[in-house]
Amino acid sequence: MNENNALTTYVASFIDELVRVGVTTAVISPGSRSTPMAILMAEHSNMDVYVNIDERSAAFFALGIAKEKKTPVAILCTSGTAAANYYPAIVEASISRVPLLVLTADRPHELRDVGAPQAIDQIHMYGKYAKWFVEMALPEDTNEMIKYARTMAARATGKSLTAPAGPVHLNFPFREPLIPNIDADSLWNKGTFNNPKHVNVSIGRPVIDESLKSYLFELLSSYEKGVIICGEQVSEEFSEYITKVASLFGFPILADPLSQLRSGSHSKEYIIDCYDTFLRNQDFTKTYQPDIIIRFGAMPISKALLQYVKANEGCKQIVIDSDGGWREPTLSASEMVYCDEIKFCEAMLALGQNKDIAKTNWTNDWILINEITMSELMSIQKEEVLAEGKVIVELKRLLPTNSTLFIGNSMPIRDVDSFFTNTEKALKIMANRGANGIDGTISTALGVSASSSDRLVLVIGDLTFFHDLNGLLAAKKYSIPITIVLINNNGGGIFSFLPQAKEEKHFETLFGTPLDLDFEHVVKMYGGNFTRINTWESFEMELLLADEKQGISVIEVPSVREENVTIHRTLWNRVSQEISNFIIKSDKQ
Amino acid sequence: MNENNALTTYVASFIDELVRVGVTTAVISPGSRSTPMAILMAEHSNMDVYVNIDERSAAFFALGIAKEKKTPVAILCTSGTAAANYYPAIVEASISRVPLLVLTADRPHELRDVGAPQAIDQIHMYGKYAKWFVEMALPEDTNEMIKYARTMAARATGKSLTAPAGPVHLNFPFREPLIPNIDADSLWNKGTFNNPKHVNVSIGRPVIDESLKSYLFELLSSYEKGVIICGEQVSEEFSEYITKVASLFGFPILADPLSQLRSGSHSKEYIIDCYDTFLRNQDFTKTYQPDIIIRFGAMPISKALLQYVKANEGCKQIVIDSDGGWREPTLSASEMVYCDEIKFCEAMLALGQNKDIAKTNWTNDWILINEITMSELMSIQKEEVLAEGKVIVELKRLLPTNSTLFIGNSMPIRDVDSFFTNTEKALKIMANRGANGIDGTISTALGVSASSSDRLVLVIGDLTFFHDLNGLLAAKKYSIPITIVLINNNGGGIFSFLPQAKEEKHFETLFGTPLDLDFEHVVKMYGGNFTRINTWESFEMELLLADEKQGISVIEVPSVREENVTIHRTLWNRVSQEISNFIIKSDKQ
Repeated sequence: MNENNALTTYVASFIDELVRVGVTTAVISPGSRSTPMAILMAEHSNMDVYVNIDERSAAFFALGIAKEKKTPVAILCTSGTAAANYYPAIVEASISRVPLLVLTADRPHELRDVGAPQAIDQIHMYGKYAKWFVEMALPEDTNEMIKYARTMAARATGKSLTAPAGPVHLNFPFREPLIPNIDADSLWNKGTFNNPKHVNVSIGRPVIDESLKSYLFELLSSYEKGVIICGEQVSEEFSEYITKVASLFGFPILADPLSQLRSGSHSKEYIIDCYDTFLRNQDFTKTYQPDIIIRFGAMPISKALLQYVKANEGCKQIVIDSDGGWREPTLSASEMVYCDEIKFCEAMLALGQNKDIAKTNWTNDWILINEITMSELMSIQKEEVLAEGKVIVELKRLLPTNSTLFIGNSMPIRDVDSFFTNTEKALKIMANRGANGIDGTISTALGVSASSSDRLVLVIGDLTFFHDLNGLLAAKKYSIPITIVLINNNGGGIFSFLPQAKEEKHFETLFGTPLDLDFEHVVKMYGGNFTRINTWESFEMELLLADEKQGISVIEVPSVREENVTIHRTLWNRVSQEISNFIIKSDKQ
Repeated sequence: MNENNALTTYVASFIDELVRVGVTTAVISPGSRSTPMAILMAEHSNMDVYVNIDERSAAFFALGIAKEKKTPVAILCTSGTAAANYYPAIVEASISRVPLLVLTADRPHELRDVGAPQAIDQIHMYGKYAKWFVEMALPEDTNEMIKYARTMAARATGKSLTAPAGPVHLNFPFREPLIPNIDADSLWNKGTFNNPKHVNVSIGRPVIDESLKSYLFELLSSYEKGVIICGEQVSEEFSEYITKVASLFGFPILADPLSQLRSGSHSKEYIIDCYDTFLRNQDFTKTYQPDIIIRFGAMPISKALLQYVKANEGCKQIVIDSDGGWREPTLSASEMVYCDEIKFCEAMLALGQNKDIAKTNWTNDWILINEITMSELMSIQKEEVLAEGKVIVELKRLLPTNSTLFIGNSMPIRDVDSFFTNTEKALKIMANRGANGIDGTISTALGVSASSSDRLVLVIGDLTFFHDLNGLLAAKKYSIPITIVLINNNGGGIFSFLPQAKEEKHFETLFGTPLDLDFEHVVKMYGGNFTRINTWESFEMELLLADEKQGISVIEVPSVREENVTIHRTLWNRVSQEISNFIIKSDKQ
């Protein structure tokens, strides 16, 4: 019989309290030093445990679960560089405001910085990216220290959820022997005199006072030319509120694909989904200059939109951010408002009740030009070559309701911005847009799929796919269903759109960077299905077939980088011509 | 014509000075923000540029080059999580004292912490693992700022090499436009009035004064029962000196496989290579207690040796470390001496000239017991099953001189410790033993191979192989020759030797962690040869064949974890019995 009671009771109490406060998923990467935590997590009947060998993928997998479930997920690894592999996902979680509990096992103090094996300095090792760091006490089983373990579990979880949500890091020194005693009596009930939780952490939401509400309402009411901009946000109820606010003020909503406003059953009357295309047209941007902009969520993906906001320097810009951040790269915001977004909308709607705010042609023109743009953009549907943009259009058409599209960075997310237009279907769009990295994308998507009943389709370029190939192991191991639409243009497609493309001498070496890999091999290794399609008919068929298969289905859409640029540019030029024609014809200038 | 002159001249001057001070290799991961640096590195005729998509692998690849060439290597990436992917290799470089220049491109100040895309806080982002951090100035082309750029290149390089060597981090803010003008006049010669280098950094080595030398000489001379312990060290000249010191004092040298003392043409008379086995025997450790230990290099791999040192608390322990560190986990060192290792040996030899230090049976017994152990250990050669330990014995026998063995962590390095015995062949043994991670091993080995004329054989377990599969891309892309001996026991073999193995309920899930992957697929994807051998004859044949092939050759040795433990334990028990018999028979106790 194992007599490691202090270790057992202390760690069990910590884990039990995690479960009590709602952290019921842990992603563990194997190691020796983390043994007590790993065994007790696996032993707790209400903790779901995933094991993922590559810590980089493991952390992104946890990020995906946390994004989907909107609750913190624990990640656990042993001491040493294992912990350093978490860093990319921790950075992404920090910037995209996703709660994570990073639990690292460590050598005890006497084995630190003395050349002991697998010992690195883990104190504050994630710098500012961990919003809270605690060097935990060595395990003890006094009443005091059991309360400490439970309190820290609750406190860390609460901290990860306070605004802005993000990763917290707890470092646990453990001495040998490392094996807990899972047969100990009342393993999970030590120190639980406060039931069901040792301490309940309640987190309020910021609200602004009445005078500021009135001031902002008056400000918004006093302009005819207003624009609502909605970037990435994760509230499911927000769409109902913001569409009513748009209707109240008569402002168009420029809705980023990650705003979740382009899909679902709410009113689409004011929702502009093609701005990324028509804001490239200078006749438009010169003619339609806003007097006031109000923004919710992250700064949208569209570079054309960013430049539009920047160009209108004299315009009032109100940014609403419940998390107290500063997501405002134009440097021209006039009002930064730290208020819960839905409560803000409620306040505007209340103040606007029974008021008749005069509507103008401003919004009608936005809607009209958006319609012209969409109709031209949709000409891509007639494209017979495997145009990257058409992949998005086809996915929107073919996917059943209650699907989630996880979108890789670089080209796919931009194509979604351009080509994923309003739909009544419940299609959720997700991406890692905190730091926009090409790392960990497969793993994040799998984390989402593992914790959702939605069908998960990942749309991803070949470099991003390559970067997280190891992520596929989780899909195989846990039979997580995923359809991967792999847009393979053999290299970094986005660079062909950038000024680098003109630097012929070094372009292909430094930016084009073809991988020349046939991914069928590696997909087979993970027991997945792989099809390289060559017609849109086969794309449709494979997409339907993939839905019926378990595990990994990779549908590769081969693409040629230069062709892709030409197709995009030709389309944009044609759309732009139509918009200019409309503006000139209607004599708006 | 591009007029981006300040950017061009500033960055070109920095890169040119890097080359002048000896940094002639850069490993670049593609990105946009890093464009000026990337293009100018590629443009410099004396800079060797590798492109590696996955920044984690890229940094380990650079680490391998720096380890082999013993000069700093530059790594360059764009802003965002790209930089976070460098972290594991930076930690390893820091602890294993390998110089690296970490160059990260960043957004300029006005685009930081405002939600701009791909912008993260890169200031001090590697914490204490970067031994020096500089937030570089924005590019300017005044005479002053060109001198600044050149000085910082020289200074950063010098800093990476000062004791202890390690990674330095320079963060470069760049504004758009990002394209340098590679047609600019005298691109590489701005500000070079001091030729050939702008500033030459000379780094001295620590020496101790005469009285301390005499004191330590007297201390070492005053004991009969002394032991020299040599851990990982990288000097090629050291073996000549330490073998003479051993002969002077009549002390055995316990030589870690990474001490480079077990192979080569120097005298092996005093070199004990089987201590990891016989120090497990308590009859030995009780009978042969040292009065003085002198240590060079890192703490060796052997846990038995660590415990032996710890157990002899009353023993004097002198640690020589030219880098001023504290690699001493036993907490019982009596003298920590910060002196160049070779200069220390020279001093002892000078003081010992013409002195006749009385030799005792102490060292003869160590040599005798070492011989008994080796002869018993080598019985593994008769093993017909694919015993993991025998892989090492066979490699030593079969590899030609001037081969480098790069050894994966966890089981392979321990098997090398047990089974790689003294040889006259020039076989270099390398490993990532700073933090002993299982990450980045393929990439590090490839970095070594890319910068060495030696044949490179990587011996690696399946989890370690999996962790850095992406590393294989560099081998394919640059046709870097590598023979990989993949010891595939389908999971974490080392855990079967640890107390965790008794925790049947959770063992296989949390520690065994079988991957169940057929790596032949992925090796094929990288254009490599893959053979799964089933006899020792086929192992020998494939090893010979692999030498004639270009690129990647993977020889998989299938192994069964439980069998492996049994074979090891049976062998250790038999050896132990022989040692005990010898000790009892010779009445040493």
